Amino acid sequence: MNKDNKLIPGLPSGFEDRWNKKLFLKKKLLKVIEKNFIKYGFDPLETPSFEIAENIGSFLAEDDSNPMSDVFSFDDGGKNITLRYDLSSPLARFVAQNNQELPSIFKRYAIQNVFRNEKSGNARFREFTQADCDIVGNVNSAQANAELCNLVASTLIECGLNKNQFTINVSNRKIVQGLIEDLKIPENKKIKVMRAIDKLDKPDFGFKGVEELLKKERKDKSGAITKGANLSNDQTSKILDFLKIRDLKELKQNFKNPLTQEGIKELEEFFEILTFGSYFDQVKTNFTIVRGLDYYDGFCVETNLNFKAKNNKGKEVDIGSICSGGQYDKLISRFKGVDIPGTGISIGVDRLLFAMIQLDQIEIDEQKPVIVCVMDEKYLPNYYEILDNLRKNNINSEIFLDSKKNLGKQLTYANKRGCSIAVICGENEFKENKVTLKNLLGVKGENNQKSFPKENLIDEIKKFI
Amino acid sequence: MNKDNKLIPGLPSGFEDRWNKKLFLKKKLLKVIEKNFIKYGFDPLETPSFEIAENIGSFLAEDDSNPMSDVFSFDDGGKNITLRYDLSSPLARFVAQNNQELPSIFKRYAIQNVFRNEKSGNARFREFTQADCDIVGNVNSAQANAELCNLVASTLIECGLNKNQFTINVSNRKIVQGLIEDLKIPENKKIKVMRAIDKLDKPDFGFKGVEELLKKERKDKSGAITKGANLSNDQTSKILDFLKIRDLKELKQNFKNPLTQEGIKELEEFFEILTFGSYFDQVKTNFTIVRGLDYYDGFCVETNLNFKAKNNKGKEVDIGSICSGGQYDKLISRFKGVDIPGTGISIGVDRLLFAMIQLDQIEIDEQKPVIVCVMDEKYLPNYYEILDNLRKNNINSEIFLDSKKNLGKQLTYANKRGCSIAVICGENEFKENKVTLKNLLGVKGENNQKSFPKENLIDEIKKFI
Repeated sequence: MNKDNKLIPGLPSGFEDRWNKKLFLKKKLLKVIEKNFIKYGFDPLETPSFEIAENIGSFLAEDDSNPMSDVFSFDDGGKNITLRYDLSSPLARFVAQNNQELPSIFKRYAIQNVFRNEKSGNARFREFTQADCDIVGNVNSAQANAELCNLVASTLIECGLNKNQFTINVSNRKIVQGLIEDLKIPENKKIKVMRAIDKLDKPDFGFKGVEELLKKERKDKSGAITKGANLSNDQTSKILDFLKIRDLKELKQNFKNPLTQEGIKELEEFFEILTFGSYFDQVKTNFTIVRGLDYYDGFCVETNLNFKAKNNKGKEVDIGSICSGGQYDKLISRFKGVDIPGTGISIGVDRLLFAMIQLDQIEIDEQKPVIVCVMDEKYLPNYYEILDNLRKNNINSEIFLDSKKNLGKQLTYANKRGCSIAVICGENEFKENKVTLKNLLGVKGENNQKSFPKENLIDEIKKFI
Repeated sequence: MNKDNKLIPGLPSGFEDRWNKKLFLKKKLLKVIEKNFIKYGFDPLETPSFEIAENIGSFLAEDDSNPMSDVFSFDDGGKNITLRYDLSSPLARFVAQNNQELPSIFKRYAIQNVFRNEKSGNARFREFTQADCDIVGNVNSAQANAELCNLVASTLIECGLNKNQFTINVSNRKIVQGLIEDLKIPENKKIKVMRAIDKLDKPDFGFKGVEELLKKERKDKSGAITKGANLSNDQTSKILDFLKIRDLKELKQNFKNPLTQEGIKELEEFFEILTFGSYFDQVKTNFTIVRGLDYYDGFCVETNLNFKAKNNKGKEVDIGSICSGGQYDKLISRFKGVDIPGTGISIGVDRLLFAMIQLDQIEIDEQKPVIVCVMDEKYLPNYYEILDNLRKNNINSEIFLDSKKNLGKQLTYANKRGCSIAVICGENEFKENKVTLKNLLGVKGENNQKSFPKENLIDEIKKFI
């Protein structure tokens, strides 16, 4: 509050309002995404925002010493409840709870907000929208994962991306796990090594950055130091050799660990199925992908854009993966009496939106309302008659709500709203049973008005919109 | 966790999952509601789930001694942040913050979940969906409120209610405030008196229940006692006389307090505008309506169903108002530098859904996927070709994802999903370039299969769906 005892409006850090063009575009994207999810045979599920904390755990694991620091949690009469931080964990809880009622293969989609209690000052959002599809049940994994990649490719194309604007990068966690096993890297260093590998394609890292993270430490541009995994020179160089390989055949010949070979075999089967569909060329192998969430244990996927995006200061930023996911065979079996594997993908809708706005490739198809101006209060019943007629014909429309304002102010309002048509009628029109329309997008100085018999109103307006 | 160290899946009390028919119906309702909001010229706004606590306050005020007990709030580094409990308070904050960029009249809609930290054990939900429309700015209030009532009526009709299935009950808070002023009811009793009046039409109350609440105390069926307002016999009988009146003219003649008269005048102006639209007959006066939220200060509205709904035990329950709202002239001016009135309505989507499910009046228009069965793994490329063809023609479809299962199991799955068509092709079909469809909804025992040349697939399927 300030000294007048009045409040200063604002939002908590890490949250934002959405309106106007940005929201129209988001709604358009969500509509397209949902339609495509349904087209691929996924059914909707809506779980509540809160879950019992121990049921969903925390697989974010950025801060290993305090695993729940990155979630919003409450004490609910002695029980800890948490706002969901992703859509997979609530799905696992739901499946464990309702398994008997579900079809043998459960294909569910969910489009909901998730919450991350990021540290204040971090530029990342603490609430954002995810659009997920998951396949739960005993299925042919290669088929299920190919289905998901076909879905991702077709959804992004439906959203307005061209085929050359994105790449779906896939790997299998077993490949890196086998390598780590082979190099005899101790348990307590595994996560550090996985995260170092994951950084290869991130801005400002590359081979040098990864090498530093695998060895003693890495100092970034700002001078901040990240402690490394303290691997030996031999371990480090074997990992770097591994990272140079992007081809499945080369990998198969050079890394003979059984777990690595199993991961390779799963990827080969996946690619075989993929050849039967339309999006084979969108998918590439990238063995650095290990995913941040700890529940993935096989196939994994990240989707990257092949163009740079700029923030509102014009600076190029790394959007990161706009659609990620993978196989989680043990997430559901944490619950009693169920042992069901799953695999899924998650579109970061806000990231995708950010990229789409840059491209300016989506069009808003919302029809802004026709404004019925009130030029003379005496004729209010007539204005309302026009309004009623427009709405009965499903034309978005409204009457100006303050008849004390002059026509100029009413049109200023209509322009600010981005409306294209105003209905402007006064005594003359009503006496002659006519209607006048004004084209608000017309060239200034030209005659943008047109009068015609009242009964032609709907036809005339339909010509405009 | 249980003794096997495995989790028992479940939800915190007051939350529920939504899926299958209930979710399809909810999505349908939301689509219809949003379309109608846009048709009436409202623009979308999406505010985050969290707000700074002092910015939105708590107007729920069920427990006067602890006004924040009914919201979910967190300590966010020394600042209290709260999950929104309605959509009006975030709107007020947003308008105060962005006033300069908004049109002179801001018509916004929002469809979002709100959170109420109800006491555990209470059967009410702690997260539910509201669909709100508000008009903010200096407008002709009668016109704005009539616009909202026309919107409510048309939206409910579009949702599938008949005109005789609901009533929009309106009043003006000033009417009761004037009465309270006249009766010299002290400040500390006002809220109790307002709440007593509000109970008249609630189940098990009526005049006797209200009388008890105005006097000493009321004992309900269970024996629980609610303390009354301790009014005198004279005060009580004047209020009961007032409650018997439902006609605006009669009220105008009998209650001469200036504030009451002002409220009556505003309602008269509102009804005059309403006569110009199509929904006059849907709106009735009911002077017991005062609204639970404390920020309303003029026109107020509740929408009631004219039929009883039953809970899942077959017991009749009071759904309460499915759409409420009113005028709030001081909610935004709590912020520095802004003094803008507003008025709005809020549809309780989950309550409406509950009622619509009872009526069985809405149809789901979702097309369940066509299932491409895998009868022989050798032909996987052919099955995928069929699938690709279906999807390219915008037919919702999927391939069965576990080719180890026999056809019977695949069809069981398809039936469980509620699918109507399966594509069943084996060696014969592929050799003869044919396709076989099975009608899963056909009469048992009859021939529900049909074969035809492959190129007719899309046409044949379109005949079905």
